[in-house]
Amino acid sequence: MPQLQNRQVKLASRPVGDVKREDFVYETVDVAPLGEGEVLVKVSHLSLDPAMRGWMNAGRSYIPPVEIGEVMRAGGAGEVIESNHEAFRPGDKVTGITGVQHYAAVKGERLQKVDTRQVSLESYLGGLGMPGMTAYFGLLDVCGVKEGDTVVVSGAAGAVGSIVGQLARIKGARAIGIAGGADKCRWVVDELGFDACVDYKNEDVAKRLRELAPDRINVYFDNVGGEILDNCLAQIAFHGRIGICGAISQYNSTTGYRGPANYMSLLVNRARMEGFVVFDYAARYGEAVAAMAGWMAEGKLKVREHVVEAPVEDFVPTLNKLFAGENTGKMVMKIG
Amino acid sequence: MPQLQNRQVKLASRPVGDVKREDFVYETVDVAPLGEGEVLVKVSHLSLDPAMRGWMNAGRSYIPPVEIGEVMRAGGAGEVIESNHEAFRPGDKVTGITGVQHYAAVKGERLQKVDTRQVSLESYLGGLGMPGMTAYFGLLDVCGVKEGDTVVVSGAAGAVGSIVGQLARIKGARAIGIAGGADKCRWVVDELGFDACVDYKNEDVAKRLRELAPDRINVYFDNVGGEILDNCLAQIAFHGRIGICGAISQYNSTTGYRGPANYMSLLVNRARMEGFVVFDYAARYGEAVAAMAGWMAEGKLKVREHVVEAPVEDFVPTLNKLFAGENTGKMVMKIG
Repeated sequence: MPQLQNRQVKLASRPVGDVKREDFVYETVDVAPLGEGEVLVKVSHLSLDPAMRGWMNAGRSYIPPVEIGEVMRAGGAGEVIESNHEAFRPGDKVTGITGVQHYAAVKGERLQKVDTRQVSLESYLGGLGMPGMTAYFGLLDVCGVKEGDTVVVSGAAGAVGSIVGQLARIKGARAIGIAGGADKCRWVVDELGFDACVDYKNEDVAKRLRELAPDRINVYFDNVGGEILDNCLAQIAFHGRIGICGAISQYNSTTGYRGPANYMSLLVNRARMEGFVVFDYAARYGEAVAAMAGWMAEGKLKVREHVVEAPVEDFVPTLNKLFAGENTGKMVMKIG
Repeated sequence: MPQLQNRQVKLASRPVGDVKREDFVYETVDVAPLGEGEVLVKVSHLSLDPAMRGWMNAGRSYIPPVEIGEVMRAGGAGEVIESNHEAFRPGDKVTGITGVQHYAAVKGERLQKVDTRQVSLESYLGGLGMPGMTAYFGLLDVCGVKEGDTVVVSGAAGAVGSIVGQLARIKGARAIGIAGGADKCRWVVDELGFDACVDYKNEDVAKRLRELAPDRINVYFDNVGGEILDNCLAQIAFHGRIGICGAISQYNSTTGYRGPANYMSLLVNRARMEGFVVFDYAARYGEAVAAMAGWMAEGKLKVREHVVEAPVEDFVPTLNKLFAGENTGKMVMKIG
């Protein structure tokens, strides 16, 4: 095999506020000889997720930060081109933590082989990937959704939120989305079957929630934090459950996070707010994938990827589309 | 019986910020003839609690607000002087919601007869009353304390907090208090047996918690809200539990509540924050009273009342001592 050249995007400095191109360096290096048990993947797709913003920060979190000089961490998908692991052969399609680069050498144990005959490679980064798992365990386990519940989910047109609302419907609950813009809201209601969707860019969220959930909110699945979390706290039901999945409205803040001023509604309503991280459920991913693939086959669960084709050098502007809310469905970068 | 005169303290206007004398009117009225099933109590002691501040506000809460013109709600204790209920006779000592007044006519079903041979009447407003029940069910049920846990409680020298730490010790956990001033901290450690106490008025709470709980905080029982809640969130352990019992630092705020900016620590640590109201456990008060009276008899649980003798007209300045943190132990107003 001729010497392969790898194009890599490495963290150069910790971003302050919005992520900038200059926070990364863009290097071309030789692909190193493959180590024992490793598999060489030609990365074709990258998963772009809000959580990536947190990985760029120093300090204690649910996984270690990306270090300065390290290839930016990213979930990815691609094709095996060389393998030192018995479970993988060239031509296999795989997903795993590949990083933002053209070629990734990954331990075989940390790759998942995927079958792309029924489900697209992109979907393995979305509905059947981390976002799908997050929606499934967050709604079913952490929030304990029950038939008849009124479920509100923010980021409703995003990778996780779009699935949360559909799972709520599948479980016999009402699903109310919150999303930015009329187009997204229409998609959420007309295509995904949510009962309603509040357009936070053009509507009074607090007022609309009072109208749409007069008997209050049993479950709020929070992807955004900020004012919308406060709106939902104000309308939470007796024994309501709030799952803290993310806080995209806060990640780029340079003045510190906004805490939920209405948190005493937890006391008034004997409600709880609980954080979770999908990796804790890794041992049960199989259960979720089986259930979700079944619902997809039955047409009850629709997944959509928002694929942007771009060279790895455009990782930052492509990621920033996510923070600008330009995606509908799971944001995937196809390495062009 | 000669016509009795009742002295009453009625809500005149909803306080803004600190409670003022002028927010109430002070009236003398005839004691009305006793209704069917009612019991006339000569009120000797009033329970003063942070929650009373919330009862003065309009709007949805866990119980209806005190209405303008109504006698201010208060738990109280006293002696039966007349009874239209078969379970009570003149001379019986009772507790119940008496209001801030000299004489209360209360339905018999809503009064508790108490035995003051072993336990003082004041203690039935404290350790064996609402504060004791709050500590018991909040720590054991809501926070699910376990042997080996590190428990932090704010308002540690207060009615609820002083019991929470002792219950934590009884259950085999470490107890760290947070209180205002060296005297209170000394009392909490030397008299009540807490493992440690942070003086928030003179120490850096965040730093002290890192020193005292290097393996982090499994349970935080929050009576105060504000910055201390943020300090404890920052130091919460994996699968930590935060019970929201109150927020005395915020009740008099005129600029809105401060939300916990560190709430995303719930996600990082898969922790939860849950509100509760003691009244929900009314059916199980007997269980708690039996357990706590037992521990009191064994010397494992100490309760202390901070009794201030004052005429009912001084309800406001006496209540404000609580918000100024002048009490050590349960604040009781003895009607002088």
